[in-house]
Amino acid sequence: MTLSSVFPDTHIALAHGNGGRLMRELIASLFARHLANEHLNTQVDAADLPLSTDEGELMMTTDGFTVEPLEFPGGNIGSLAVHGTINDLAVSGALPRYLSLNAFIEEGLEVALLDRVLASMAAACRESEVKVVAGDTKVLRRGQGGGIYFAVTGIGIRPRTLKLGLDRIRPGDTILVSGSVGDHGTAVLLAREQFGLSGELQSDSASVLPITQALCDIPGLRFLRDPTRGGLATVAHEIAHATGHSVRLQQASIPVQDPVRMVCDILGYDPLYLACEGRVVAVVEQASANQAMECLHGLGYHDAAIIGSIESGKAMVILETDIGGERILQELEDDPLPRIC
Amino acid sequence: MTLSSVFPDTHIALAHGNGGRLMRELIASLFARHLANEHLNTQVDAADLPLSTDEGELMMTTDGFTVEPLEFPGGNIGSLAVHGTINDLAVSGALPRYLSLNAFIEEGLEVALLDRVLASMAAACRESEVKVVAGDTKVLRRGQGGGIYFAVTGIGIRPRTLKLGLDRIRPGDTILVSGSVGDHGTAVLLAREQFGLSGELQSDSASVLPITQALCDIPGLRFLRDPTRGGLATVAHEIAHATGHSVRLQQASIPVQDPVRMVCDILGYDPLYLACEGRVVAVVEQASANQAMECLHGLGYHDAAIIGSIESGKAMVILETDIGGERILQELEDDPLPRIC
Repeated sequence: MTLSSVFPDTHIALAHGNGGRLMRELIASLFARHLANEHLNTQVDAADLPLSTDEGELMMTTDGFTVEPLEFPGGNIGSLAVHGTINDLAVSGALPRYLSLNAFIEEGLEVALLDRVLASMAAACRESEVKVVAGDTKVLRRGQGGGIYFAVTGIGIRPRTLKLGLDRIRPGDTILVSGSVGDHGTAVLLAREQFGLSGELQSDSASVLPITQALCDIPGLRFLRDPTRGGLATVAHEIAHATGHSVRLQQASIPVQDPVRMVCDILGYDPLYLACEGRVVAVVEQASANQAMECLHGLGYHDAAIIGSIESGKAMVILETDIGGERILQELEDDPLPRIC
Repeated sequence: MTLSSVFPDTHIALAHGNGGRLMRELIASLFARHLANEHLNTQVDAADLPLSTDEGELMMTTDGFTVEPLEFPGGNIGSLAVHGTINDLAVSGALPRYLSLNAFIEEGLEVALLDRVLASMAAACRESEVKVVAGDTKVLRRGQGGGIYFAVTGIGIRPRTLKLGLDRIRPGDTILVSGSVGDHGTAVLLAREQFGLSGELQSDSASVLPITQALCDIPGLRFLRDPTRGGLATVAHEIAHATGHSVRLQQASIPVQDPVRMVCDILGYDPLYLACEGRVVAVVEQASANQAMECLHGLGYHDAAIIGSIESGKAMVILETDIGGERILQELEDDPLPRIC
């Protein structure tokens, strides 16, 4: 088996990092091909380690953070790194406990900025009761970094009885989202000066633990995921690929904030492909959908909405448009926004 | 407390990443100040998590890898990342089990190079029976990365009865090293074309598990560490700082390969400050020193040597020189070799 037969490109492109098809191919044909083992599943948010503790099953997840700019309305790379990591554990049904932190810092970074970033990171840790227990710092030469890159690995504990996963999804199931989509992507976009736009929009960067812990008590819960890179559309494609069924979404039901819609209209982005950093997509048995919605509204997530369903048939994502038509939602190809998280 | 009162510099310098005093200050006054908790100890190789499994205590460590060039005689960034991470667990007395992998890949990287790196990584995992169970990939814009940066977090299991640590070191104890020092630093240095030198020297990058597992059976073992960034001199300083005692080293006993000595003489480096990636510094009770040496020689580590001892008194590192004098070995200040690991 030659390399070119499994991965046709000779050089890495930005689009290999966008969370869409090219990235899936990079991971499958290089990373997973070399590193395959029975515990590595590139389709889950957190790995289930075969180590049992007194408190439950041990889960492990990891995420890299390269957001630009380092500070944006609603957060910075420090709070984002904590939220992003613990959210991957949360949507796996686990309670996050311990983090490791790798910092790649570029020579010339202002120390006061690093101080603010670490203060936000610490506040996010306190809020979700997680602790950084191991760390490493590397300093990169000027021009070989992007200010700060973080890599955070999280360890959490999942109750032994909880079963969630793409394999539990069935035709007829209902799809919910816990809040408006595209806020993080748009807020970061606006924070990049070159666009010359500004707005009141804030990133939705937040812990989703309150949401996942509440939803995990609902008997008909099948699957949870946080729509980060590649947005809601990419989660829909993951569900379609994994189940072999169609995902049908109602555009009119998908919550999108007005400023997000406006900015996307002007700049030509689709909010369904933009990153969220504090939202959850949930798949529940149809009979449990109302209970799940009441639960989310009761917690104060007023924009939570039923946005679609799983249908038997071909693995694809169908969008019922605002004007009553239908179109196939394509998988992400080009990178709309590099360094969004 | 103002920022400038705890950390006087306004911008990050390359030397903040060198493993010496400046890096210690950066970590203490920024990272540890913000993120402090009862489980975060910046002086250990791996954190002891208060989670008990059927098999022992859970340990966690993390490390970033930015070596340049990405391939060097004796290894590449892939094998180095596995060795570096599992060695931190190994010197904590743990058996490494699971890894998470973060890859930061620069746009334009040759895919064939990434393929070779991942193949080496996979081989190193198989050799030490560890598995990558979680991963994340980010692609950095051209000019915002260094080809590949990796961050690897490792989870291991330590027997409940094993007690090792800086706090167990006592005056009179003996210091050993498992092989020649400075090989990795020198091999990487030579692999950088700009020096116009070449040699047969290979990096010592390797798993130290066979060494640590054997030494852990010796009753008088106090402490193990792998001398990476900052080299043997930096480990000696960590011991002196933590114990408040003097570390006395005999220069004539410290194994240094001839090509390493020659290159260092030409270029003005001191091998005692250069990184190793497959060596162990051990502190043992004096009565157990010979047993430890026989154990290492029996395993085929023929260059292993007794290189010094712990003395009551001031926290400093004293080097007895080849020519019979004594000098104080200073803590690393300037970065001799950025991106060495």
